[in-house]
Amino acid sequence: MSAWVLPDHIADVLPSEARHIEELRRSLLDTARGYGYELIMPPLLEHLDSLLTGTGEALDLQTFKLVDQMSGRMLGLRADTTQQAARIDAQLLNRRGVTRLCYCGPVLRTWPDRPHVSREPLQFGAETYGHAGREADLETLELALACLEVAQVRTACVDMADIRIVRSLLEPVQLDESGQRAVYAALAAKDASELASLSRDFPAASREGLRALPQLYGDGAVLDEARRVLPATAAIGVALDDLKWLANRVAGARLSFDLADLRGYAYYSGAHFAVYAHGASDAVAKGGRYDAVGAAFGRRRPAVGFGLDLKQLVGIVPARGLRGAIRAPWADAADVRAAVAALRQAGETVVCVLPGQESEVDEFLCDRELVSVGGEWVALAL
Amino acid sequence: MSAWVLPDHIADVLPSEARHIEELRRSLLDTARGYGYELIMPPLLEHLDSLLTGTGEALDLQTFKLVDQMSGRMLGLRADTTQQAARIDAQLLNRRGVTRLCYCGPVLRTWPDRPHVSREPLQFGAETYGHAGREADLETLELALACLEVAQVRTACVDMADIRIVRSLLEPVQLDESGQRAVYAALAAKDASELASLSRDFPAASREGLRALPQLYGDGAVLDEARRVLPATAAIGVALDDLKWLANRVAGARLSFDLADLRGYAYYSGAHFAVYAHGASDAVAKGGRYDAVGAAFGRRRPAVGFGLDLKQLVGIVPARGLRGAIRAPWADAADVRAAVAALRQAGETVVCVLPGQESEVDEFLCDRELVSVGGEWVALAL
Repeated sequence: MSAWVLPDHIADVLPSEARHIEELRRSLLDTARGYGYELIMPPLLEHLDSLLTGTGEALDLQTFKLVDQMSGRMLGLRADTTQQAARIDAQLLNRRGVTRLCYCGPVLRTWPDRPHVSREPLQFGAETYGHAGREADLETLELALACLEVAQVRTACVDMADIRIVRSLLEPVQLDESGQRAVYAALAAKDASELASLSRDFPAASREGLRALPQLYGDGAVLDEARRVLPATAAIGVALDDLKWLANRVAGARLSFDLADLRGYAYYSGAHFAVYAHGASDAVAKGGRYDAVGAAFGRRRPAVGFGLDLKQLVGIVPARGLRGAIRAPWADAADVRAAVAALRQAGETVVCVLPGQESEVDEFLCDRELVSVGGEWVALAL
Repeated sequence: MSAWVLPDHIADVLPSEARHIEELRRSLLDTARGYGYELIMPPLLEHLDSLLTGTGEALDLQTFKLVDQMSGRMLGLRADTTQQAARIDAQLLNRRGVTRLCYCGPVLRTWPDRPHVSREPLQFGAETYGHAGREADLETLELALACLEVAQVRTACVDMADIRIVRSLLEPVQLDESGQRAVYAALAAKDASELASLSRDFPAASREGLRALPQLYGDGAVLDEARRVLPATAAIGVALDDLKWLANRVAGARLSFDLADLRGYAYYSGAHFAVYAHGASDAVAKGGRYDAVGAAFGRRRPAVGFGLDLKQLVGIVPARGLRGAIRAPWADAADVRAAVAALRQAGETVVCVLPGQESEVDEFLCDRELVSVGGEWVALAL
């Protein structure tokens, strides 16, 4: 095997794509900043126990582990930045009011999430701490859609769900963890016969509710149907109210609901969403409410946020044009050097052709050349 | 130990510093782009053998290792990005002409380089491949100084040296690796008696030259002095010529020379430099020529480049002012939402005060407030 073959699902990002990712990165960070989200840069490495605090088995399996030679302790490479943001909110900033944080950096995963995805996503995310109301959920969803719009993603639809519905149905049942996992798996697979068998001995309301859930997907009419067929618990009422309230206020995207959707069930605590786009088979942005995560850091704060992978995004958005560059001769003369410096100062890219390279292929897209006209150095079209 | 204590020499970057680093990051990448450097994003993880190809023991010791669960092979977390850039030039781009590459991303190190530095520097660098002439060395040094200027670093001086001088002195001696290392260590420590003892049996020219080297530091006069006291080998002549040529063309920085400087001796192959700044005890940017590195990837290309750590840089440059934000009421009404959207579109930060948070401390620096004046929503000074 050649020395330079990269590990599976790990790749170099070469110039044209890297430039595009950098442009996307800036526009997403600027968009989040426009909403008042403050940038943080948590470290790639943390003590493993801190990094996995309050998270589930899935994240543990996704996390690369290594030994810290300075302390002998076990470290983890972050596989997700959300927990770090929750830790920073709870431990470092420790503010009373609402805190809005955003970040953009690599995360690393032992196994790819899905076929054809990188094990080193470039994760962009935005999180709001300290507000339990649905207004914060709405702001999060709006920001996610604004980010996708500025990235020129053609949003196809927003899938919405609320984990409180399933939790409320299972509340009277007192399932142990493996029993719960079996029900979640059957719901996720929309496996009606397995669900019927698992819920055989459940109280009637839970059993009927669980059996109805897999049919509750589609447009807004699903919410009215759900109110008819699901038990009228307080939690289910609030969840359906919140979904309807959010749906009435989201502009610029087709909405659909899938009340049996259990994506991130170990993590979310309320409404959650996934945005789908033309050209991508997987969701391009995912988010929702996760009020419990901060508790592990000693401060249970309401929390809602979303995240996306820039490396996935760059594959489905139109490439932006490369601004033309100026080719200039390499020269010792002060007037040429001053002309080059002035053009660079004005934001132009000026590629000086190094001696001996005059006949080489021009790799940068040079559409102008610096030439002397009547004693003045000017950039003329090639 | 609390779960949230970070490993030694690993830290969170909180909002005010993160914003500053992001601004620096953009201005450095834009400056490099102005010179025609193309951005690349190599992965954080590579097969260990590839990552350490052609590098020395020092980098091996600095590199975190872990096992790839997908392949069972040993992986390394990059401790330096330069080798990755050389690999990309040699293997992926494989161009005939000059290739200019730049990058900005985290690197990870098992041990801190020096006291008080991060084990997770944010490395920015620029490399030029395919040109052996000193014009490329000059462009690299100019770009380094331009980057420090745009970052508002008050450059104190540029230290210059050339590894070819020591190599030429040692060439007739035929030292084994440990003998060579002992000489390098004595030179670096400017330990005259150790140097005398080690070079006792060397040919006279080498012995005298080595003994003279530790005195050859200071301003430009050092180069003339060196020409007098060092043996007149071809390599030494070229090295001194190149240093003089570069020194004559570098503007805006005080130059000094230290011909016994052996920083990065396992790596550099020609002239190299270190830039010092007011407020920092260590060099803030380091670079030079390293023609041999690409050979390990099957393509020996002339190479010159430099790198710096943005986390170090941000500590010594003046903080930039935070642009004021606008506080807006949270509202369902279409006219307020339109006013907020328009301000954000215009590049403003608009923080919507979520319901119940009206009395909370304002963490963002809001200098204006969105208020209704005669039926119009306008941002007025607070």
